[in-house]
Amino acid sequence: MRVTALDLGTDGGANGGACEVSEATARYFEKCQEKLGLVPNVLKAYAFDDVKLRAFTDMYNDLMLGASRLSKLEREMIAVAVSSVNRCFYCLTAHGAAVRQYSGDPKLGELMVMNYRVADLSEKQRAMLDFAVKLTERPAEIVEADRQRLRDAGFSDRDIWDIASVTGFFNMSNRVAAATDMKPNEEYHSMAR
Amino acid sequence: MRVTALDLGTDGGANGGACEVSEATARYFEKCQEKLGLVPNVLKAYAFDDVKLRAFTDMYNDLMLGASRLSKLEREMIAVAVSSVNRCFYCLTAHGAAVRQYSGDPKLGELMVMNYRVADLSEKQRAMLDFAVKLTERPAEIVEADRQRLRDAGFSDRDIWDIASVTGFFNMSNRVAAATDMKPNEEYHSMAR
Amino acid sequence: MRVTALDLGTDGGANGGACEVSEATARYFEKCQEKLGLVPNVLKAYAFDDVKLRAFTDMYNDLMLGASRLSKLEREMIAVAVSSVNRCFYCLTAHGAAVRQYSGDPKLGELMVMNYRVADLSEKQRAMLDFAVKLTERPAEIVEADRQRLRDAGFSDRDIWDIASVTGFFNMSNRVAAATDMKPNEEYHSMAR
Amino acid sequence: MRVTALDLGTDGGANGGACEVSEATARYFEKCQEKLGLVPNVLKAYAFDDVKLRAFTDMYNDLMLGASRLSKLEREMIAVAVSSVNRCFYCLTAHGAAVRQYSGDPKLGELMVMNYRVADLSEKQRAMLDFAVKLTERPAEIVEADRQRLRDAGFSDRDIWDIASVTGFFNMSNRVAAATDMKPNEEYHSMAR
Amino acid sequence: MRVTALDLGTDGGANGGACEVSEATARYFEKCQEKLGLVPNVLKAYAFDDVKLRAFTDMYNDLMLGASRLSKLEREMIAVAVSSVNRCFYCLTAHGAAVRQYSGDPKLGELMVMNYRVADLSEKQRAMLDFAVKLTERPAEIVEADRQRLRDAGFSDRDIWDIASVTGFFNMSNRVAAATDMKPNEEYHSMAR
Amino acid sequence: MRVTALDLGTDGGANGGACEVSEATARYFEKCQEKLGLVPNVLKAYAFDDVKLRAFTDMYNDLMLGASRLSKLEREMIAVAVSSVNRCFYCLTAHGAAVRQYSGDPKLGELMVMNYRVADLSEKQRAMLDFAVKLTERPAEIVEADRQRLRDAGFSDRDIWDIASVTGFFNMSNRVAAATDMKPNEEYHSMAR
Repeated sequence: MRVTALDLGTDGGANGGACEVSEATARYFEKCQEKLGLVPNVLKAYAFDDVKLRAFTDMYNDLMLGASRLSKLEREMIAVAVSSVNRCFYCLTAHGAAVRQYSGDPKLGELMVMNYRVADLSEKQRAMLDFAVKLTERPAEIVEADRQRLRDAGFSDRDIWDIASVTGFFNMSNRVAAATDMKPNEEYHSMAR
Repeated sequence: MRVTALDLGTDGGANGGACEVSEATARYFEKCQEKLGLVPNVLKAYAFDDVKLRAFTDMYNDLMLGASRLSKLEREMIAVAVSSVNRCFYCLTAHGAAVRQYSGDPKLGELMVMNYRVADLSEKQRAMLDFAVKLTERPAEIVEADRQRLRDAGFSDRDIWDIASVTGFFNMSNRVAAATDMKPNEEYHSMAR
Repeated sequence: MRVTALDLGTDGGANGGACEVSEATARYFEKCQEKLGLVPNVLKAYAFDDVKLRAFTDMYNDLMLGASRLSKLEREMIAVAVSSVNRCFYCLTAHGAAVRQYSGDPKLGELMVMNYRVADLSEKQRAMLDFAVKLTERPAEIVEADRQRLRDAGFSDRDIWDIASVTGFFNMSNRVAAATDMKPNEEYHSMAR
Repeated sequence: MRVTALDLGTDGGANGGACEVSEATARYFEKCQEKLGLVPNVLKAYAFDDVKLRAFTDMYNDLMLGASRLSKLEREMIAVAVSSVNRCFYCLTAHGAAVRQYSGDPKLGELMVMNYRVADLSEKQRAMLDFAVKLTERPAEIVEADRQRLRDAGFSDRDIWDIASVTGFFNMSNRVAAATDMKPNEEYHSMAR
Repeated sequence: MRVTALDLGTDGGANGGACEVSEATARYFEKCQEKLGLVPNVLKAYAFDDVKLRAFTDMYNDLMLGASRLSKLEREMIAVAVSSVNRCFYCLTAHGAAVRQYSGDPKLGELMVMNYRVADLSEKQRAMLDFAVKLTERPAEIVEADRQRLRDAGFSDRDIWDIASVTGFFNMSNRVAAATDMKPNEEYHSMAR
Repeated sequence: MRVTALDLGTDGGANGGACEVSEATARYFEKCQEKLGLVPNVLKAYAFDDVKLRAFTDMYNDLMLGASRLSKLEREMIAVAVSSVNRCFYCLTAHGAAVRQYSGDPKLGELMVMNYRVADLSEKQRAMLDFAVKLTERPAEIVEADRQRLRDAGFSDRDIWDIASVTGFFNMSNRVAAATDMKPNEEYHSMAR
């Protein structure tokens, strides 16, 4: 199965059955398979070019798995709330599964996909998602009062950076996935239901 | 002058006068100063954390300066047209200057900032920007017909990937800049007018 | 558990534990329990008034279960695509489950919830959903050409009535659910995954 | 004159001159003619199917004429304000006339059609219409604070149900009318001017 | 009765009972009274300053009453279709009446107010209103193809200028009226019904 | 060079090299050349008809240069902020230059073009631009509270009239320019940088 609607060339093969990725990428994919039970299709999509794959994974791993006062679950909640605005099938599927897994609460995953506003969240988490969604929908209208609302809810300036970075990252990924018709691994649909 | 409205911590100082960046970053900034005549404020903003700075610059340098069938000017045109939708002061300023520089045509920079639709472009470049702007404004509505329109205009699937990646990247950067109130270097305003 | 954020009065109790519905309603709910394994919370929400409950179920049963050239699955697909525009947690949950059940295809349910445009549908079904979604988002812009597109795709005028009626019904229900913060039965989340 | 752009079949005739409706419907239409001086075209449009006609009229009559703490005029004001968002020619015409009739104030009818925000209303009625219009335009953004605003303005939870139901009903009817190009009876235009 | 929500100063009095307008304005108002049977409130609103009143009436009279291949009715149809997008109570009321008067067709006035798309118009008039409404809603998206559509419908470049000018004028007037809460003369409501 | 995409007839020539304007217009243009160093293309566009040109310049000169408590710079700031919403290449270019000239601050011109919300303005000027932009984007939603916000910021009712009039004027001009593809004089691009 091709992982995107694009054919990224003879050199890549990342999208075809006969995948000829670099050795480094092959090792990375083995590690994914071991730890996650699958190689996320987004990585296969980037695998036609080692530099691009590495730039993507370096940024992703720092933002979503690196040190931050935002919990991994909170970062995934932002990912899904943002992807819900942009209606990104790939990211809603893959990161909706992540919310279900990290939270152990299947309904929370659904709420982030469907409408975070009706979820029963803490004031702090609601402020975080309100900011992420406004930044997604109307970035030009962000003013100091929006940042202050996050500070009033208990976030530091560094936390604001992290909220902004995760929000920004998924506004990028949602669009790359939409433009290329990237398809999520089938396994995600039934995970942690 | 602080480069963003955020205070990113005691360790960084990236935003203050007394900049205590890592040695690697200091060397990188020296190179910027040498080549560009300035250190772009976006880099100073990321400088509080070497990993984040490197992830950002790796992705940026590959996308905007690496191998691609899109010319550097075309990539900058996408950057500005996208930033115009999102009304990002930082990116419109810095990349508007880049369009003026690469093209030697100050008016083209203004057109990308103000309204790419009234510019006198080739059919191919217009198709490229139409796609980038639709992907920015309504990513959920991208369908195969949109990709086909790019192919009909002469773009390969790999080109589509590059258009999507640059579009995605500025949808990320616009939002990080908006969220943190990032300010462009003053020098950009008068460059290549 | 209350099924909506509203307290619909001492006579109803529909929203509380001590449900004192009319005998007719009690019998109807027993039948629901038997056939569906649950009493949909939307019915409990309406149960404070027998006339309203009957008006709702009469219309619902005719539209979703009555005679029509649209299959039950197609009607549910419209229900979910419309509810996705309106981001209705109740309807996306309950009717997303119905799409999974009728189709035996969990991914199809997810696609209707997330973004019907990326689903691999027949031209005819896509035309049906395109119409339903335009009618939901921009009803004022429906013109004869939109109806003609449905006829060209193979729909009769009576089919158009049915597509319009289902679309209209969920534009109603989505808003009643949103206004009253109606919560879906927990059982739906794991059904037919 | 046909009452909609659709041809709903040989059995109905509801849309043609030679109207062969069921006996029950014929009697109902006679009653309409007697009480209202006309048979509303929406009823003729539904007359091709007795079950659908009855489901529609049962719901309509309960919502718009049944017991409620909202006056009939207030319910008609909601009907028109909602239909103004959706620009529904049928409903603006028929229910604009109803606002003029119930209020004895032709200008009030015009204000509901054109822009309820510039009408000189009580705080309570303005809160009611603000809610109805937000629920129409952005149902996904309704949160508890919106319901609380209604309670603060003097509405009970049951009143909120009624506001939501009328708002929902016209979001349905507006779309059925738009999809089928339903035309209002000519008589409405000059009524109660 | 004040004609706007603004108090435009001791020198004007245009908005109060004790109207002390200049002699020239007084004579102009007498002529209005004679010809129209009323002095339009918009003129009273501008009467606090003779220069502004004259600039407004000069432009208005040229555009709406001067030489043009667009009929006066067509110009009024544009006026109302534009004002409908902007939901301007003043202009919808005053110019809706003008459409009814010029056309002798009360329903046409209502259609322009409510939704011009469902009116039964010639292809040429529909093209004219489609352009006016797009220019009102999304001026940035007007491209050569939009102008060409008007030419294909039979309009000359000069006609396009006139369509654009009338559309522009009401986009101005709608906003001045909205900003100042300008109220139309009561007489308009019942005119030509 | 033609100044618009339209050909406004043999009598005008305003758009061609061989400009045969009336004597009065010729004298007016000489004065423009003398005082501004150029004849703004918008005037050349209107020059095919003396009445239209005079109506336009009378209104423009009163609004932008006549007596008002708004400074000329403030009126130009409104002009550019409004034109930025409408993405009008002509007005952003010509009036962006005016902001740079009046303020002596090239960056302020850029900020108005790109996103006035990130400019470092007084509370009063921000209130002025917030009103102008809301009036541009959502005129139907202006209510008394919006006017009161201006009064609270220190504006009189007459000032509100002036803010509304300038906002209205550019909502007109932006649309005439967009509809006719009006091109700004090249000189503006480098002025006052």
